Amino acid sequence: MTALSSDLLTRQANLLLILASPISPAGGVGGKRRDRVLTLDNMNPNVKRVEYAVRGPIVQRAVQIEKELKAGVKKPFTEVIKANIGDAQAMGQKPITFLRQVLALCSYPELLEDKKFPEDAKKRAQRILEACGGNSIGAYSASQGIECIRQDVARYIERRDGGIPSNPDNIYLSTGASDAIVTILKLLVCGEGCDRTGVMISIPQYPLYSAALADLGAVQINYYLDEDNCWSLDVKELRRALSAARQHCNPRVLCIINPGNPTGQVQSRQCIEDVIRFAKEEHLFLMADEVYQDNVYAEGCKFYSFKKVLFEMGPEYSSTVEMASFHSTSKCYMGECGFRGGYMEVINMDPEVKAQLTKLVSVRLCPPIPGQALLDLVVNPPQPDEPSYTTFMKERTAVLATLAEKASLTEQIFNTVPGITCNPVQGAMYTFPRITLPQSAIDKAKEAGQAPDMFYCMRLLEEEGICLVPGSGFGQREGTFHFRMTILPPTEKLKVVLQKICEFHLRFTQEFS
Amino acid sequence: MTALSSDLLTRQANLLLILASPISPAGGVGGKRRDRVLTLDNMNPNVKRVEYAVRGPIVQRAVQIEKELKAGVKKPFTEVIKANIGDAQAMGQKPITFLRQVLALCSYPELLEDKKFPEDAKKRAQRILEACGGNSIGAYSASQGIECIRQDVARYIERRDGGIPSNPDNIYLSTGASDAIVTILKLLVCGEGCDRTGVMISIPQYPLYSAALADLGAVQINYYLDEDNCWSLDVKELRRALSAARQHCNPRVLCIINPGNPTGQVQSRQCIEDVIRFAKEEHLFLMADEVYQDNVYAEGCKFYSFKKVLFEMGPEYSSTVEMASFHSTSKCYMGECGFRGGYMEVINMDPEVKAQLTKLVSVRLCPPIPGQALLDLVVNPPQPDEPSYTTFMKERTAVLATLAEKASLTEQIFNTVPGITCNPVQGAMYTFPRITLPQSAIDKAKEAGQAPDMFYCMRLLEEEGICLVPGSGFGQREGTFHFRMTILPPTEKLKVVLQKICEFHLRFTQEFS
Repeated sequence: MTALSSDLLTRQANLLLILASPISPAGGVGGKRRDRVLTLDNMNPNVKRVEYAVRGPIVQRAVQIEKELKAGVKKPFTEVIKANIGDAQAMGQKPITFLRQVLALCSYPELLEDKKFPEDAKKRAQRILEACGGNSIGAYSASQGIECIRQDVARYIERRDGGIPSNPDNIYLSTGASDAIVTILKLLVCGEGCDRTGVMISIPQYPLYSAALADLGAVQINYYLDEDNCWSLDVKELRRALSAARQHCNPRVLCIINPGNPTGQVQSRQCIEDVIRFAKEEHLFLMADEVYQDNVYAEGCKFYSFKKVLFEMGPEYSSTVEMASFHSTSKCYMGECGFRGGYMEVINMDPEVKAQLTKLVSVRLCPPIPGQALLDLVVNPPQPDEPSYTTFMKERTAVLATLAEKASLTEQIFNTVPGITCNPVQGAMYTFPRITLPQSAIDKAKEAGQAPDMFYCMRLLEEEGICLVPGSGFGQREGTFHFRMTILPPTEKLKVVLQKICEFHLRFTQEFS
Repeated sequence: MTALSSDLLTRQANLLLILASPISPAGGVGGKRRDRVLTLDNMNPNVKRVEYAVRGPIVQRAVQIEKELKAGVKKPFTEVIKANIGDAQAMGQKPITFLRQVLALCSYPELLEDKKFPEDAKKRAQRILEACGGNSIGAYSASQGIECIRQDVARYIERRDGGIPSNPDNIYLSTGASDAIVTILKLLVCGEGCDRTGVMISIPQYPLYSAALADLGAVQINYYLDEDNCWSLDVKELRRALSAARQHCNPRVLCIINPGNPTGQVQSRQCIEDVIRFAKEEHLFLMADEVYQDNVYAEGCKFYSFKKVLFEMGPEYSSTVEMASFHSTSKCYMGECGFRGGYMEVINMDPEVKAQLTKLVSVRLCPPIPGQALLDLVVNPPQPDEPSYTTFMKERTAVLATLAEKASLTEQIFNTVPGITCNPVQGAMYTFPRITLPQSAIDKAKEAGQAPDMFYCMRLLEEEGICLVPGSGFGQREGTFHFRMTILPPTEKLKVVLQKICEFHLRFTQEFS
């Protein structure tokens, strides 16, 4: 994100939030403000710099509109469609039966006597309960996560990566992937001025990264993905960004999101090798955000984990490059966002640092146990000889097939419209099409103190009830405009949404031409 | 904690952790260390300063001993009793049936057809599901928490406080109370050098506070509770601590834990009034950690919320003093630690700051939904006309009555032993007795680079298999020694534990006299 659009966004967010907050007669923005202990002027400045567009002002306005609709206010639409966030079940995706059966059994073990539940679900629940303090998911676990679940995660990684060993001691369960990502960044940030830790992130990026870096006071180093080449990553661009950054900070970390969020690309094996070689040469800690590892749709694309590639590059790499890889229960075929489950695997981490990491996570006691249990089922799903296997596979396959269909549908429909250019959605859950905006719309937005794509998305929300996130919330090349939309609405609804956006785009273009 | 004992603890923790970590031939403490991107020398120095004794080296040793026992190693005991952490269900407390029934229904809504479940449990589950995106607890919620649950929390607070109004907009659901406490501290920390934010915490304290302050680089200001007066809080001591701190930092926050952790005292209404008056006079933001609000056992003691007292002091206070109060699903009668549920209520917070708070929590998307659901049941339990009421009340009363019995038992038994002095456990879940240690034991500990009470607790662990936390992990007056023990083991086991500690104390004293 450019400094300008970032600043605009912040001001706008503040304004909207102030307008939305009831100001009590006893204080508020007016007279008594100087009397308060905690004000905008004397609060943590890093927090003020934090931005998180996925839940930013546009989503707040969407929630408001929903309330207005409920209260009977007439609108040109009857419901708000929230395509702003990768929240599959909110969009109607059904939970996987096996996962929820085991969770019910863990929550209320009296059900273990119930004949309705399949034996493999009961066996999984019993195993999880036996690993819990007092045989209850109401007890704290070890801060790193329940040991037998960490073992299951390690075995899952070994299967995924064709037998490359994984050590359960290197697995840390987490509260969603966000928690683990912030924790690793926190370990890495130090220094002042030109020695301050710099962290390389892709542009466009998932704004958790920029938010965490602002919060930690680290330096954000932008490298741009190549939109003309299907959002691919070019090591030349990494080199450019790194050498520019070395003038003013101490770059120590390289973050990669693969499959990409918000851009939906899937990295080639060759590209991953190049990135790893770059990280080694330039002495960077690698953070591989691989939460969409099961979400690969495009023909010829395949998910390669950074760890697998690292180990296949031989001991020169596999025994030296420091890395953390992140996964989550929120995405893939299960979409269990609400449980906040996840894990990370750390590789080649200094044992003394690992001890500090273990200490640090202990302060928050432990990740939520239902999320840990869920993760265990994801990494240890029903096997072909177990009673739940058929249903489980049917449900899983159906979700992934539908996502693949919607990914291709999205690309096709958007690309029919002049002024919308859309790369293939190779993986993940989003499309990030580029939109051409008339100059007069750009001017109008600037007058209103809004980023032009925010102006566009706000208009779309007001006119069609569709909630997207402006590209400026993820970062984009100066002078280009985008939005992020999830491909998660049910197919028929998605078609309508796409159609409406296309029509809106034509209308908007006409209005401002 | 004194600087000395703190330093000793850190060194010891690091040593133990290094010894426990497998060092790969490719790197580690030895030759290749300088090659790593991330080492102990160049990591975030604030993280290094973090300490969290409740899960510190003694607990790591306890886990090791458990593994040794499992592997058949002979010990003078057959199991490790972990009285280090307030984890009721790990100690055998049974979950409350109603809570778990509703959670099972929410996890697997097919059970809503099942006749085994009472109608009120189904009604609660249905209401929660209807408030979830896609009617599923697998969807994200609003970052502040599900709206109807925040409404229920507000009504609960109003009932608790005799009708003083509570606004759902001021309620933020959280991942346990720890999450919310760290978030509020984060908002408040700013400035450098003598302007750096100072935060007043009680000594002894719950080490989440010191850990969070170290992590945030804030200045910890110690005020001492009065052990001779049942760990009461004296405003004179607050004044002393504050005026000393003003020499070197900018004190802005006063943290109170009531009922007390680790000290088990329950503050009088008068004392709360005095504290509020002090906070107003001295322009401090109040943080009231009230997670043990249902855990009050001693006759004549009663829980008064800071908010209730604040509002009863009249508008001069109720419209000006800024405050946050914290609650959790982990303690009280339910003890559902593993679900990581909790909430905070903010009072008189600047609307602009509140907008920043809302933005900040949105980065982590939302607290886990099972924890939010659980919280809803805690604040909206079965009513007298509902089918689950009788069982619910029976279970709730039994847990609290047993805790009261164990609180009094603990005090009685400890006070029979010369060299152990124990204040009444008026509330919460812990006792923090003072132990007299022979000088030669103190010397011996120092030789070993250990805090004397760590030395004592380690010996107790090795000889009796009982895991306590040394007082130095919570802070104590220079030259005094304590330990924290939970009162959570089942009554018969608790008696044995108390007896064993008493015998150990006599033996230890004799050995070093």
